[in-house]
Amino acid sequence: MSEAGTRATLRARAYDLLARDDSGPGARAVRAALVLLIVVSVTAAVVKSVPQIGRAHGNLLDLVLLLTTFGFAIEYGLRIWIAADNPGAAGAARERLRYLFSLPGLVDLIAAIPFALAPHLGLNIDWLDIVPIFKLLRHTAAFQFMVEAVYSERRVLGSAAVLMLALLVFQSSAVYYFEREAQPDKFGSIPEAMWWGIVTLTTVGYGDITPVTPWGKIAGGLTAVMGLCMFAIPVGIIASAFIEAVRRREFVDTWNLVAKVPLFRMLDAARIAAVAGVLRARRAERGERLIRKGDQADAMYFIVSGEVEVDQESAAPKGRLGAGDFFGEIALIAERERTATITALTACRLLVLHKDDFERFMDAHPDLKQAVRDAAQRRLKEINAA
Amino acid sequence: MSEAGTRATLRARAYDLLARDDSGPGARAVRAALVLLIVVSVTAAVVKSVPQIGRAHGNLLDLVLLLTTFGFAIEYGLRIWIAADNPGAAGAARERLRYLFSLPGLVDLIAAIPFALAPHLGLNIDWLDIVPIFKLLRHTAAFQFMVEAVYSERRVLGSAAVLMLALLVFQSSAVYYFEREAQPDKFGSIPEAMWWGIVTLTTVGYGDITPVTPWGKIAGGLTAVMGLCMFAIPVGIIASAFIEAVRRREFVDTWNLVAKVPLFRMLDAARIAAVAGVLRARRAERGERLIRKGDQADAMYFIVSGEVEVDQESAAPKGRLGAGDFFGEIALIAERERTATITALTACRLLVLHKDDFERFMDAHPDLKQAVRDAAQRRLKEINAA
Amino acid sequence: MSEAGTRATLRARAYDLLARDDSGPGARAVRAALVLLIVVSVTAAVVKSVPQIGRAHGNLLDLVLLLTTFGFAIEYGLRIWIAADNPGAAGAARERLRYLFSLPGLVDLIAAIPFALAPHLGLNIDWLDIVPIFKLLRHTAAFQFMVEAVYSERRVLGSAAVLMLALLVFQSSAVYYFEREAQPDKFGSIPEAMWWGIVTLTTVGYGDITPVTPWGKIAGGLTAVMGLCMFAIPVGIIASAFIEAVRRREFVDTWNLVAKVPLFRMLDAARIAAVAGVLRARRAERGERLIRKGDQADAMYFIVSGEVEVDQESAAPKGRLGAGDFFGEIALIAERERTATITALTACRLLVLHKDDFERFMDAHPDLKQAVRDAAQRRLKEINAA
Amino acid sequence: MSEAGTRATLRARAYDLLARDDSGPGARAVRAALVLLIVVSVTAAVVKSVPQIGRAHGNLLDLVLLLTTFGFAIEYGLRIWIAADNPGAAGAARERLRYLFSLPGLVDLIAAIPFALAPHLGLNIDWLDIVPIFKLLRHTAAFQFMVEAVYSERRVLGSAAVLMLALLVFQSSAVYYFEREAQPDKFGSIPEAMWWGIVTLTTVGYGDITPVTPWGKIAGGLTAVMGLCMFAIPVGIIASAFIEAVRRREFVDTWNLVAKVPLFRMLDAARIAAVAGVLRARRAERGERLIRKGDQADAMYFIVSGEVEVDQESAAPKGRLGAGDFFGEIALIAERERTATITALTACRLLVLHKDDFERFMDAHPDLKQAVRDAAQRRLKEINAA
Repeated sequence: MSEAGTRATLRARAYDLLARDDSGPGARAVRAALVLLIVVSVTAAVVKSVPQIGRAHGNLLDLVLLLTTFGFAIEYGLRIWIAADNPGAAGAARERLRYLFSLPGLVDLIAAIPFALAPHLGLNIDWLDIVPIFKLLRHTAAFQFMVEAVYSERRVLGSAAVLMLALLVFQSSAVYYFEREAQPDKFGSIPEAMWWGIVTLTTVGYGDITPVTPWGKIAGGLTAVMGLCMFAIPVGIIASAFIEAVRRREFVDTWNLVAKVPLFRMLDAARIAAVAGVLRARRAERGERLIRKGDQADAMYFIVSGEVEVDQESAAPKGRLGAGDFFGEIALIAERERTATITALTACRLLVLHKDDFERFMDAHPDLKQAVRDAAQRRLKEINAA
Repeated sequence: MSEAGTRATLRARAYDLLARDDSGPGARAVRAALVLLIVVSVTAAVVKSVPQIGRAHGNLLDLVLLLTTFGFAIEYGLRIWIAADNPGAAGAARERLRYLFSLPGLVDLIAAIPFALAPHLGLNIDWLDIVPIFKLLRHTAAFQFMVEAVYSERRVLGSAAVLMLALLVFQSSAVYYFEREAQPDKFGSIPEAMWWGIVTLTTVGYGDITPVTPWGKIAGGLTAVMGLCMFAIPVGIIASAFIEAVRRREFVDTWNLVAKVPLFRMLDAARIAAVAGVLRARRAERGERLIRKGDQADAMYFIVSGEVEVDQESAAPKGRLGAGDFFGEIALIAERERTATITALTACRLLVLHKDDFERFMDAHPDLKQAVRDAAQRRLKEINAA
Repeated sequence: MSEAGTRATLRARAYDLLARDDSGPGARAVRAALVLLIVVSVTAAVVKSVPQIGRAHGNLLDLVLLLTTFGFAIEYGLRIWIAADNPGAAGAARERLRYLFSLPGLVDLIAAIPFALAPHLGLNIDWLDIVPIFKLLRHTAAFQFMVEAVYSERRVLGSAAVLMLALLVFQSSAVYYFEREAQPDKFGSIPEAMWWGIVTLTTVGYGDITPVTPWGKIAGGLTAVMGLCMFAIPVGIIASAFIEAVRRREFVDTWNLVAKVPLFRMLDAARIAAVAGVLRARRAERGERLIRKGDQADAMYFIVSGEVEVDQESAAPKGRLGAGDFFGEIALIAERERTATITALTACRLLVLHKDDFERFMDAHPDLKQAVRDAAQRRLKEINAA
Repeated sequence: MSEAGTRATLRARAYDLLARDDSGPGARAVRAALVLLIVVSVTAAVVKSVPQIGRAHGNLLDLVLLLTTFGFAIEYGLRIWIAADNPGAAGAARERLRYLFSLPGLVDLIAAIPFALAPHLGLNIDWLDIVPIFKLLRHTAAFQFMVEAVYSERRVLGSAAVLMLALLVFQSSAVYYFEREAQPDKFGSIPEAMWWGIVTLTTVGYGDITPVTPWGKIAGGLTAVMGLCMFAIPVGIIASAFIEAVRRREFVDTWNLVAKVPLFRMLDAARIAAVAGVLRARRAERGERLIRKGDQADAMYFIVSGEVEVDQESAAPKGRLGAGDFFGEIALIAERERTATITALTACRLLVLHKDDFERFMDAHPDLKQAVRDAAQRRLKEINAA
């Protein structure tokens, strides 16, 4: 293999480890190491800010920060290198530039600069020590759901933000006009009153500035009530969009579970989604018998979480299946008795595909019916032969 | 019966009283006694903390605490003993060890130690007096729903917790950097600023620490708004998972109601669930006539709560039915007139199974149809003979 | 008519005016007068509490309070008298006793006692002046929805209350143990710490008592987060049960609208509910033409709110229809052209019953079909004859 | 054209620019200019309130305010003029009067008065400088959704407001009676206590007034809990009504998208709504291929947001389609292969109309089937000819 080819292969491997979702144990280890690096770096920056600790162990903490910065610099270099492998790439150089000027790219850049040296150079920019915390967001599913939720509802949220800003300015101005003579030190200008306004509209209510005149109090009470009612709206929108994003992700996970079954390999994405749609959720307690050897087979099972024991009640050793495995799929294609007893070893979450539902699905897609039956017969023969 | 047999029977009886759900009046009395013991113990610990009362009645309260501790010790011993009867037990000794090192087991242990004696021995660990309050959770349905809700959504909640922790650290750091010179006593380090951060993100807003610089106030206002929007998410997830857990429990209760009807005894669990699924909820006001003697029968009723009066309009005395009872079940199998008038004595919640729905269910399960009809005819003959 | 008969008639009339829902203009006027009386009484009590006003106009306000008390006394007497007409009454005396010892009856009693005289008799019980505000709840639909919501979810709410009480006691105790040495004046006992606890769990956060030790702050932060998550549950349950109660009431209103149509008079309650179920909501803007003379008729309309103009485009004067009226019902039974043009005079909310939906409903209830058709033909003849 | 005709045309043009929704780029530019004017004016008023800036640049800011006032005056005059073109107008004069005395009309009037001159005339009414912020609401969709939401639920909200007012008065009175002797300066009267009440019920909790007596604290804790539970109700109602209003608007947008397709021009509004109802939402990532040239056509697409590239894979230049465009509509009427490859240039939101859904819709409306097929064949010929 040419040197360029080796480099490309190496780069693809690095891409898998650093940037792809759902990779194997190697990627998980790399991700864990990166998260650890971030946690160590941020913790050092936080601890360093405590004066006693900063004075006593400042040099040690600076060393830790420098080392993590060095780690981030390596990561940054790697990410520039592998950006060329981004999907839909219009050329390595362009994809790299796109990464360099993206928000994550800029955060990675700042995290890679040794700001811990700044005080020693007389610069007062040590607050940049905390920036690596943003690197954590890349590894946080909730942040990605949040971004997706805010993005999909950005119009309504933007409009609601304008409305709340208008409310904030107006209510603050009103209280300013009522209070400015009674408390010129606290309500000295509308911007100062807006601090009161935001604290009241969000129902935080520090109490450092409060109205004291009767009209100021009436306007303040209205502000508190309006704050409650108005903030309910973006909060409700974000919460429901977030939950929807989570559900969408869960559907994708179910889909992936179904797509792994050999029987379904010939189906296209839309058909697998249709199969996934007729799955039913079920929980099993520890010790519950899911399938008894000799029973009539009427459903197949996917394990979402937990572990089950497969006991063929013969000389064969007992087996175990875990999350992502499935069993009983022969039930869907042949009238057979169960060939093993399956018991939940832990509390399990399962997805069940009933024979009836599967057959109804096949009837609705007659073109697939024969093909799936053929594939199934082949697989059944293999099993019988084995 | 052998001595061991007697002991086993006794232990099974104790297990029923202490550990089984849905037991009879004996278990309810035991549970009420245990709850009372906890309430007395915790109240004594709370009251003892008031200096005047602690000085005046300290010895009396210590006595109360010792007595309740003694009660908890007996309960603890019994629970160790009966742990052997846990379902799915892999041997008495192993189940007992499992209980000893479970969280409830450790709480039971701590509650059984007489910490009230500690001050008299010069130990300052009287705060353990309050531990028995955790024993209350075993008897609180809402706590079990809560645990179930958090468990079923633990991934999203964990991810959201990371996101909020990152937000907390970042916002606190930002305000720390803006405020540390203006208020070195209050924003002296990032950990101190994090106290401000959590108080603001949760919209509690004590006001003991607040930003005073313009940039600090801007960052603080953003923190308050972000807190509102971000906390909406776990709150929404927990609330909806909790309500779902409650609904699941209500379904189980309905199922139990249906399973008690002699007519349905031959059905398996899935079929009873199917019957339960076609029940319709209905409320009746006090004094409302539900069934009039001589009317055409078209539905049977389950009483969820409240009481009804059965008046056969004959020499027979009037009867009463309460929560868990059912009436009118003959309507489902025979064309008959109602044989009694039934009136709600209190406001009632009822579940109604209409004849049409029941017949549609039977048509969908033809194998059951004849069997249920036979059982019904037998029951009808008994009634006619009676 | 005998004197007793006259009295009974009079009492029934008084019952209609005071105690029945959905009565005519007389009852509305009586209700408005009662609400006014309550508002005047409460306002007087509130205003009297302001020292300057109390000193200057105390006698006048006491006079107002005495007069309203006198009004409440008359109302109280009438309510005792008419209690005999309560539905499902088991005898006048028993119903009256039931009212006397009911919560509303006791509030009515206290409101009828002239407490405004108390200070003049040297009694310090003038706080009872505010009691009439509870009389307002009888006239507030939201309160009745709230009671219904809390009642229907009382089990879960009760269980959640126990859980939150346990959380409150535990968190307060924890912070008490951490803070009692640092702030013996503020966290002097667990009950004192519980004031801090409730203020934090509800996210009110006055800031009069706050933890100052590091462990106290950590426990305090956890308390704030737990408060947010835990209170979400009862809040969510009450809010959704409340909205459900409102929807139930709206269904009843729709039902009443349908029940007024002559065509549907022969239907029983369940059938009217079935008709109401196929209605579709529609809004019309001011000036929108709903029906054009000569068009093919395909739906009838119920007016929920707003007003329409009926223009027969002939010498006949234009008519008006308002909330509760309906039009176009002939469309459901005969192939006819519209006989008038109908235009919205104001923004209207309408319910539409489409011919197709109505016919599908009739097909599902063949026993009714002929009867409704006959009634319809009769009505059609009347219209044609007119 | 007569002078009056010219004026009417001009007025209609001005109406389009100022008052119509969904107009072209001209109207958008006018709207942007008006919003800018408002923002400048309000910012000037806010900045002017800061004493240092007010003193240093007061005259400049007054000039800015006067200029924006002048702009608002012109806008006001134009709006009076074009009011004659309001739809459903009952005469120009009446429509103009209606505008003059409407709330937006009065706000426009106040914004058009040069209050910045007031201080120079010795008048203290400069707080009216902030009024133009209300003009912003005309351009804020969220405000219109909010008004719609509050209006549609006004009965329940009104009833809930009465309930909360009663709660506020009662709880404040209770705490007043408990606290008035301990803190006569803070709880000096019921109205003063109501300031505490509203701050507590909304969970703002400034802490400027707090109960100090045991009974006051118990009543205060109950108030906080009740506030949480009660405010959940209007908040929940407003939030869900708001989201419903947004969804309604989205449906209208979808409807408009469908109505633009030539194929559907012959359908009436209800039929277009039916078509819109069978659309399915879909997201496409940047770079995703939506249609491949030569594939069997089975669906048409509407672009909600984002951009796609049309590549006919021939000498013809690549084309672009954006929000509001559609493609693939021939698939609905003819068995054809795709004639171009279409790729998403940005992340896109699409609506998909599947051939099957469209045919099912056509089967349900046989009268339309032939007409649509004819129109489609004509269009197909045009395309083939081109």
